[in-house]
Amino acid sequence: MLNFNFQNETKIIFGKEQESKVGKEVKKYADKVLLHYGGGSIKRFGTYDGIINSLKEAGVEVVELGGVKPNPRLGLIKEGIEICRKEDIDLILAVGGGSVIDSAKSIAVGVPYAGDVWDFFLGKEKISKAVPVGVVLTIPAAGSESSSGAVVTKMDGQLKRSIGSSLIRPKFAILNPELTTTLPNYQTACGAADIMAHVMERYFTNTENVDLTDRLAESTLKTVIKNTPLAIKENENYAARAEVMWASTIAHNGLLGTGREEDWSSHLIEHELSGIYDVAHGAGLAVVFPAWMEYVYQHDLERFAQFAVRVWDLDPDFKDLEWTARQGIKKTREFFASIGLPVTLAELDIPADRLKEMADKCTAQGPVGNFVKLSSEDVVNIYKLALK
Amino acid sequence: MLNFNFQNETKIIFGKEQESKVGKEVKKYADKVLLHYGGGSIKRFGTYDGIINSLKEAGVEVVELGGVKPNPRLGLIKEGIEICRKEDIDLILAVGGGSVIDSAKSIAVGVPYAGDVWDFFLGKEKISKAVPVGVVLTIPAAGSESSSGAVVTKMDGQLKRSIGSSLIRPKFAILNPELTTTLPNYQTACGAADIMAHVMERYFTNTENVDLTDRLAESTLKTVIKNTPLAIKENENYAARAEVMWASTIAHNGLLGTGREEDWSSHLIEHELSGIYDVAHGAGLAVVFPAWMEYVYQHDLERFAQFAVRVWDLDPDFKDLEWTARQGIKKTREFFASIGLPVTLAELDIPADRLKEMADKCTAQGPVGNFVKLSSEDVVNIYKLALK
Repeated sequence: MLNFNFQNETKIIFGKEQESKVGKEVKKYADKVLLHYGGGSIKRFGTYDGIINSLKEAGVEVVELGGVKPNPRLGLIKEGIEICRKEDIDLILAVGGGSVIDSAKSIAVGVPYAGDVWDFFLGKEKISKAVPVGVVLTIPAAGSESSSGAVVTKMDGQLKRSIGSSLIRPKFAILNPELTTTLPNYQTACGAADIMAHVMERYFTNTENVDLTDRLAESTLKTVIKNTPLAIKENENYAARAEVMWASTIAHNGLLGTGREEDWSSHLIEHELSGIYDVAHGAGLAVVFPAWMEYVYQHDLERFAQFAVRVWDLDPDFKDLEWTARQGIKKTREFFASIGLPVTLAELDIPADRLKEMADKCTAQGPVGNFVKLSSEDVVNIYKLALK
Repeated sequence: MLNFNFQNETKIIFGKEQESKVGKEVKKYADKVLLHYGGGSIKRFGTYDGIINSLKEAGVEVVELGGVKPNPRLGLIKEGIEICRKEDIDLILAVGGGSVIDSAKSIAVGVPYAGDVWDFFLGKEKISKAVPVGVVLTIPAAGSESSSGAVVTKMDGQLKRSIGSSLIRPKFAILNPELTTTLPNYQTACGAADIMAHVMERYFTNTENVDLTDRLAESTLKTVIKNTPLAIKENENYAARAEVMWASTIAHNGLLGTGREEDWSSHLIEHELSGIYDVAHGAGLAVVFPAWMEYVYQHDLERFAQFAVRVWDLDPDFKDLEWTARQGIKKTREFFASIGLPVTLAELDIPADRLKEMADKCTAQGPVGNFVKLSSEDVVNIYKLALK
């Protein structure tokens, strides 16, 4: 186990009808909020009205900025920064999934910074201040509701880049599983792939003696694997929705990475896909992760065998760990397919003609990943394994 | 799953030599600390000198109060309160295990309160203010390093009572597994029983649909079950020590109780034992918990069968869940015995003559427990199952 620091201050308010508490929670930080959201779904299902009422009752003044798209864009963030400055906003309330939250976090760091907010994403500037962010979560997937990170796309150059700082960790996150029952099944499935990827990016590590976090990670994966198909089969299944929603937060609140080196190459490889082709992040991960596994599993057969046995309940063949490991990878890909996700680039209509361009962009700062260091050539090979 | 709130702000600083950071961390809150500790062990093994140096280097003035005993006493707490007031202390630094930390937390709430600090333990007064507490942990057991609770013994009347408030959650906790390598094996074993009990008090619940927290709890138990014997066999085994230490915090930081009703009757039943006989809390739990299990398991055979299968890797007999459940209880008791703990009151030299008195005290406020509500008569029966 490696030395580590761990602290996560986000207050989680979990359960039925809990979004009615948003006004009271916001009021602790703000007299005036920016209500930040995506498309029309929060208006269609009554979430919007409930939140507005709760804010009004608490005496909080509301300024709105909707229109966040999946893979949030820098343009809207700059607009949000201007509004916050002009309106003297005390807290940004993100109502939505990871894209809305990440957009809110990016606005939050941009407001007190005189330069271009993209500087933070380029690593030119360190985050030292941020407007507080609060969350009402509607999509369990990104884990951004209590994470310290945010990912944003700059259309000019099709660059998808991230920031990280404990200063952008949300102050509170309201998680009502009822709000997720109206999600299209494809989005529920994409969310599951994202949650599982957040766990697996930490699970596949070279750090030894990480019993507890291995097991906590396996627990989180097993919970998502059991409950996602239930939620897809019966959209109103509160219990299944609740398990997946709490798992989404646990997967990415930092706990599962304590004391271990993390990898994150599959995310970076996927980011190049969704940067150019604008595919759903979870769908991209369902394609990339099994391909990455196939490419690297021989680096640590024991770990991949453990994954197969503990996560997928497979019988190990101790004389043939390679077979055991491959069975676990096969099960992972089959699971993604079973919940309606693509598992090849072909299914995403992504042709083979820009693989090298994406791989070069992905590795522009040097090799990616820690479990196995991947060069541009390695990344091309992984894309190729995912082709069809 | 029940609705819940979860927030845990304690900053965990984990790993080798991390106590050297204590001065820097304390300085964020305090120019003057009360250094609170137990007996001579921290002086014997150099921990004390390291901490004093780190505090001095950071320019922190130190006032000392040692002498905390296992099952901390109200008398010393009142002394601590006087010192803090007189010396204008900004933070109480607990260096030790649960007893020292709980003593520090009790001092912390007593300082700003004009009345008798015992009022908080009697529920007469609500905690609304507290001096900040920091921790350097030397015994993985109580989980008090990031919990919101504290347990104290009032000698007059031999009463053991508790308080709880997020205001007494430590601001930071430094966990260096190296500091635990000098623990006597018996104390390591007692710690393991305490950690496991914290998990099991939450595991045995009537709340349905708690997949994720069930699995996280099982993970924590399996980690302790695997690593405690390794730590006892090779005291210097850093990896095993680290697993047990991180498990002690996870077991009791609130995560494993999210969304589920907890029980806590075994703790209350044990508190009466250690209130009168001053046995180590973990040893008392190793005696009480299996007896409690035997008394209540028929209330939910499926849950006890799950415990047997998932925690102890036993083969279920689906036609005979009762047999399966009993095997899990047997394994639990055998495990405690295997690490050198008592599993009967006889082994603790506790006679049968005060069982009713203890049971009456335990249930003075009404039945205890949630999984099964226990009357005084039930508690007597549990003590009897533990006799020999």
